[in-house]
Amino acid sequence: MLRTIPKAELLTITIILGIMNSYKHFKICIGLLLISLAPLHAQIANDLTHEEALKALLAAKKKAEDSQVLVNIAVVDAGANLKAFIRLDESYLGSIDVAIKKAKTSRYFNAATGDIGKLTQPGGIIYNIEHSNGGLITFPGGVPIKNKEGKIIGAIGVSGGTIEQDHEIASSGALSILK
Amino acid sequence: MLRTIPKAELLTITIILGIMNSYKHFKICIGLLLISLAPLHAQIANDLTHEEALKALLAAKKKAEDSQVLVNIAVVDAGANLKAFIRLDESYLGSIDVAIKKAKTSRYFNAATGDIGKLTQPGGIIYNIEHSNGGLITFPGGVPIKNKEGKIIGAIGVSGGTIEQDHEIASSGALSILK
Amino acid sequence: MLRTIPKAELLTITIILGIMNSYKHFKICIGLLLISLAPLHAQIANDLTHEEALKALLAAKKKAEDSQVLVNIAVVDAGANLKAFIRLDESYLGSIDVAIKKAKTSRYFNAATGDIGKLTQPGGIIYNIEHSNGGLITFPGGVPIKNKEGKIIGAIGVSGGTIEQDHEIASSGALSILK
Amino acid sequence: MLRTIPKAELLTITIILGIMNSYKHFKICIGLLLISLAPLHAQIANDLTHEEALKALLAAKKKAEDSQVLVNIAVVDAGANLKAFIRLDESYLGSIDVAIKKAKTSRYFNAATGDIGKLTQPGGIIYNIEHSNGGLITFPGGVPIKNKEGKIIGAIGVSGGTIEQDHEIASSGALSILK
Repeated sequence: MLRTIPKAELLTITIILGIMNSYKHFKICIGLLLISLAPLHAQIANDLTHEEALKALLAAKKKAEDSQVLVNIAVVDAGANLKAFIRLDESYLGSIDVAIKKAKTSRYFNAATGDIGKLTQPGGIIYNIEHSNGGLITFPGGVPIKNKEGKIIGAIGVSGGTIEQDHEIASSGALSILK
Repeated sequence: MLRTIPKAELLTITIILGIMNSYKHFKICIGLLLISLAPLHAQIANDLTHEEALKALLAAKKKAEDSQVLVNIAVVDAGANLKAFIRLDESYLGSIDVAIKKAKTSRYFNAATGDIGKLTQPGGIIYNIEHSNGGLITFPGGVPIKNKEGKIIGAIGVSGGTIEQDHEIASSGALSILK
Repeated sequence: MLRTIPKAELLTITIILGIMNSYKHFKICIGLLLISLAPLHAQIANDLTHEEALKALLAAKKKAEDSQVLVNIAVVDAGANLKAFIRLDESYLGSIDVAIKKAKTSRYFNAATGDIGKLTQPGGIIYNIEHSNGGLITFPGGVPIKNKEGKIIGAIGVSGGTIEQDHEIASSGALSILK
Repeated sequence: MLRTIPKAELLTITIILGIMNSYKHFKICIGLLLISLAPLHAQIANDLTHEEALKALLAAKKKAEDSQVLVNIAVVDAGANLKAFIRLDESYLGSIDVAIKKAKTSRYFNAATGDIGKLTQPGGIIYNIEHSNGGLITFPGGVPIKNKEGKIIGAIGVSGGTIEQDHEIASSGALSILK
């Protein structure tokens, strides 16, 4: 269960080949070098990197602290899998799961959880969809994270403050990765 | 996987020093003695002890018996973990889980479950939050347990009577530890 | 969800009818009176009462404290449903569920958990039965509770000490109700 | 569901009193100020703060990156509740839950998961304990987090590399908060 990347030798060979001007082998080696670097430094297209997840998490944390709101913050990737999380001291214990479910719900349906919630009320077109996927949360506090091309690459969920505060903190986290 | 506490010797030294009137060393030994007793007889700050949990449980049980209401009673600690429980004979089997979930819900969000329930109705700001945390119960019967400083140190949940009775029994349990 | 027992009036009528010597109605009223008293003061045959559960719990707690072992103690009734529980301060958080599962496992199969565990090892006749019933625990610490007639009326599970200590504490709890 | 802390006015009064040299009232106000700051900046005794959790997380992340191992890292608090989490790009999806369960298992039983695993093998004294608590992980990669007094205040779990790497990364995270 380990991915080791013996890239030092590859780099040496690549540079030597470059100097020797063996263009064809140089290209192959550059290709191999890029592949070998890939697991640590690249990511599939349209997915959140862990550095972006951490950036969004810390931006939301700062916003919460500046606003003196005690929250839990969860970030999920394009596959709706947990990517980053933090719980502020003294925030609600029950908000751990609510924050994670808000992030997942938002990515599951590519919408802010508050918008989904408008459709899940009694008589609504997707009434009680909360029963699916091991439990959804459909009130505000979860928002999709988009890249610069506007493509959804993950989502962020916040729980612990009022629903307005949670939504605002989540939004500031989502927007941070565009800066 | 056992914690033994060699406190007998410490107690002897403490008493001898007390008799010898060496006040300064006496104080230090008293301190050490208190620390050595801690794992069995004290608890981290702001958390319910098992003796408090038992006291709340038995006070609620007495209240239920005096009112001839057949209930299940659950007490959770500051971490929302089960600390004490009792089920009265002939009470509803379904109330075991309801009582535990009421106690957990109350501690998860630091509020009486009935107050949370006012916000979870259709159109409410946290509609359907019950789908989180493996299932919440948001009708009356769960109340936070506070210490003398007003700090929440756990919660108690009661199920089996009317919601008014459940709430009253839970409250009398929570209040008992202040006496 | 309430069982009220308006037995004061019934008692009055019963006594009056007794005095009046209306034998037939007297018998009916005695019958009604007994039924009305039943939910609080009797219990189905071969089931643990909550007073017995509490007695076993407190006897096991005393044994644990005398031995300075930090444990969780769970008592289940004849239906394998949780009847009483206590967690000593500073005992393992993971032992809450282990204690409850030991008690349930013991009653599910009417045997001490350690005896069941001898059959669940690789190659054993009930290998990996732990996967059933939402998870079983089959090492020592769970024992059946029997009444004076030797009939199993519940079980007790203990977790937190060594398996020998857990078994001993559980046994002393189970035996206490015979005294 | 919001905790606001009106500390701005208190801070002003504190500074003015300090300038006015009214030492006694100054001390009282400093005390009040500390209390008012507490919910955001302090924590109950013997529990991990979110800043400590973040420090441990980032130290483990750096260790993993330096070793070029792709892992998931989870930190839980004294109550075994999730406090911080990060998943490195391209690490195993299955390791999200394994990392969280390693951290929880370590805190549930106050031991490194690898040490617990030595007791859970066929024939071991707690064989198949993994079936409790919604699933435990008992191979290396989870270690308790201790404070400077040696008290366990949480735990960290790592999954994605070899078990030796996971354990080493978790340990470096746990040790980081002592620096």
